[in-house]
Amino acid sequence: MLLTNATVATMQGGTAYGLIDRAAIALEKGVIQWVGPMDQVPAEFAGPGDDLEGRLVTPAPIDCHTHIVHGGNRAGEFEMRLGGATYEEIAKAGGGIVSTVRATRAEDEDGLLKGALRFADALIAEGVSVIEVKSGYGLDIETELKMLRVARRIADLRAVRIRTSFLGAHAIPEDMKDRPDTYLTEICLPALKQAAAEGLVDAVDGFCERIAFDTAQIARLFEQARALGLPVKLHAEQLNHSGGTHLAARHGALSADHVEYATDEDAAALAEAGSVAVLLPGAFYTLHETQAPPVAAFRKHGVPMALATDCNPGSSPMASILLAMNMGCTLFGLTAEEALAGVTRHAAQALGLEDCGVIAPGKRADLAVWDAEQPAELPYRIGFNPLHRRIFGGVG
Amino acid sequence: MLLTNATVATMQGGTAYGLIDRAAIALEKGVIQWVGPMDQVPAEFAGPGDDLEGRLVTPAPIDCHTHIVHGGNRAGEFEMRLGGATYEEIAKAGGGIVSTVRATRAEDEDGLLKGALRFADALIAEGVSVIEVKSGYGLDIETELKMLRVARRIADLRAVRIRTSFLGAHAIPEDMKDRPDTYLTEICLPALKQAAAEGLVDAVDGFCERIAFDTAQIARLFEQARALGLPVKLHAEQLNHSGGTHLAARHGALSADHVEYATDEDAAALAEAGSVAVLLPGAFYTLHETQAPPVAAFRKHGVPMALATDCNPGSSPMASILLAMNMGCTLFGLTAEEALAGVTRHAAQALGLEDCGVIAPGKRADLAVWDAEQPAELPYRIGFNPLHRRIFGGVG
Ligand SMILES: [Zn+2]
Ligand SMILES: [Zn+2]
Repeated sequence: MLLTNATVATMQGGTAYGLIDRAAIALEKGVIQWVGPMDQVPAEFAGPGDDLEGRLVTPAPIDCHTHIVHGGNRAGEFEMRLGGATYEEIAKAGGGIVSTVRATRAEDEDGLLKGALRFADALIAEGVSVIEVKSGYGLDIETELKMLRVARRIADLRAVRIRTSFLGAHAIPEDMKDRPDTYLTEICLPALKQAAAEGLVDAVDGFCERIAFDTAQIARLFEQARALGLPVKLHAEQLNHSGGTHLAARHGALSADHVEYATDEDAAALAEAGSVAVLLPGAFYTLHETQAPPVAAFRKHGVPMALATDCNPGSSPMASILLAMNMGCTLFGLTAEEALAGVTRHAAQALGLEDCGVIAPGKRADLAVWDAEQPAELPYRIGFNPLHRRIFGGVG
Repeated sequence: MLLTNATVATMQGGTAYGLIDRAAIALEKGVIQWVGPMDQVPAEFAGPGDDLEGRLVTPAPIDCHTHIVHGGNRAGEFEMRLGGATYEEIAKAGGGIVSTVRATRAEDEDGLLKGALRFADALIAEGVSVIEVKSGYGLDIETELKMLRVARRIADLRAVRIRTSFLGAHAIPEDMKDRPDTYLTEICLPALKQAAAEGLVDAVDGFCERIAFDTAQIARLFEQARALGLPVKLHAEQLNHSGGTHLAARHGALSADHVEYATDEDAAALAEAGSVAVLLPGAFYTLHETQAPPVAAFRKHGVPMALATDCNPGSSPMASILLAMNMGCTLFGLTAEEALAGVTRHAAQALGLEDCGVIAPGKRADLAVWDAEQPAELPYRIGFNPLHRRIFGGVG
């Protein structure tokens, strides 16, 4: 397939957006063979081509941080909060993460899959080619594995790639509230080993906060991941500074996520480790946070910044990667180019994927064709999807 | 048509959402004939029915404040601003409303229509049944009329109702910068008269701010509207308190829009006049405003609050009424029920429409059927469209 007459944002770095005007892209066997100016198409790829009429082509977006597999929703809690209910009243009414854990345990695989597909479909409708999906609403061995199996099944039913992260260390279950280490020993680490043995785990993630696990506990998790040969990533410094980013860097994490309270030193450590800072403006927005992530420090130290939806039923019920881009710009001050890199090249890096995220020979032919003239239109609009055509693995 | 097994939010007031569980709705000739519990369907409407499987039905949303007819876009300006450009640099590069005026004057009717349809289609995909569309990027007689003609054409091409507002008093054109009254006398008022004569105007709107027109100038506009028998509404108190709300109330306006800086007295005046406060969180969000509208005062005085997208190329490039609902809750603290009333009953009132906005006998059969169990799911989610089916004038 030869795509012609396109405005291509290769996102290869170097120039702004790696932009090529009046460009062509040659695809074969699901792989990009060539990209460049239309008037320089090599003879082997020449042909009538598929005229994109000047439309913008970008790497297909990648959502590198989601929790789309979960039971129930928390609309009732949202309503209570807006009605003035206190945290205690909501907890008493069964709200909070506990309610999602309960609903996720109760739901069977088909029910969870049906729910997850709604969000996967919404993301796919924006051209998304890879969705990262976390476990973490089971907090028991059986349900953690069930969530990961459901995540894998999404890729059987939809033209999308799924990357799973084991997030058994998401919260401490109610019945072990004061015994996080017991939970790790008896539930979380055994669940991880079993899930890994079943091939259900692409990365290991944790939630490092005062209200969840401390750095020593996360270190235990990361040691287990290392023993299993799995890469790690971490929810870190979202609500306060707890040292998670530094720990993640020390373990060569793929990414540290949220990172609102990360410091200049944390940024330096991430840069040194080659880790990505994954920014999640949907949660920042929903929780009315005021501490934005240290974007200037990330720039200064050259930390790649990714953007993701964090699609989850509590703090970020958002299912739009385009909106994550807009919020990254509007709420965190990213440039339009940083926002696009954040859902393409840097999102791929946050998942350890080297075969996608840029438009270059040898990369997967996962492309998004937009009814847009320039890349800045993507983060500029709010709640508007200009996708014209999605190409996944060369098909579409 | 008999819709059965629905959860119906009638929005009639009285009880929360006017909710009826296990409800049925009888439609005939595009009009709602009956709504109530399934087991009480009157014999004349009884039949097998169309089983909605418990889904939520609401009045079709109404977007009561948009600027979807315009030339060009301001993505480049968005990008410059994020890149650190100053206001002066953007103005020098031809940015700001001036650039939209230039692009709108240059575009022909078909081009403007094509652009507007993209946004209309996005809104329709969320079930929207009525879109208000303003002029105001012409600032000359010919272009103001062109915009209104294009707005009317949307309703010929799509199953949606269009309500136009003449907004010639949106800004002062560059060549009359220091002569707003001359602009009113020579351009704006003649354009209004001509547009009204052609049947292009449903309401008259203005922009009352330090950077646009003062209350004396808006009063001139409103006098002209009164002479033509047209209702008025006003962009008021968005950037500072300039007395627009009070003026609007004095003229019995359908609505005062934005109203971030409205006072308790303004709220009392709106209540007295029966005017709606139209809240536009998309602009608040985009402009990084910190002064939220006085929701508590509106509640205290019983001012109906509507929510709209303000879809425009500068301060609110948003084309999602669902997102306006979420932002109304998240940024302005509306309850979920206020958000839904804001895009149904109160949005209809802001347009002077009495035939829609609630589910009740005699009203238009404009309904939205959602894949949702409870109304709070609509404002709860972010960038996710759970519309299952749209019924417009009894069809769908
Ligand atoms: Zn998360
Ligand atoms: Zn407006």
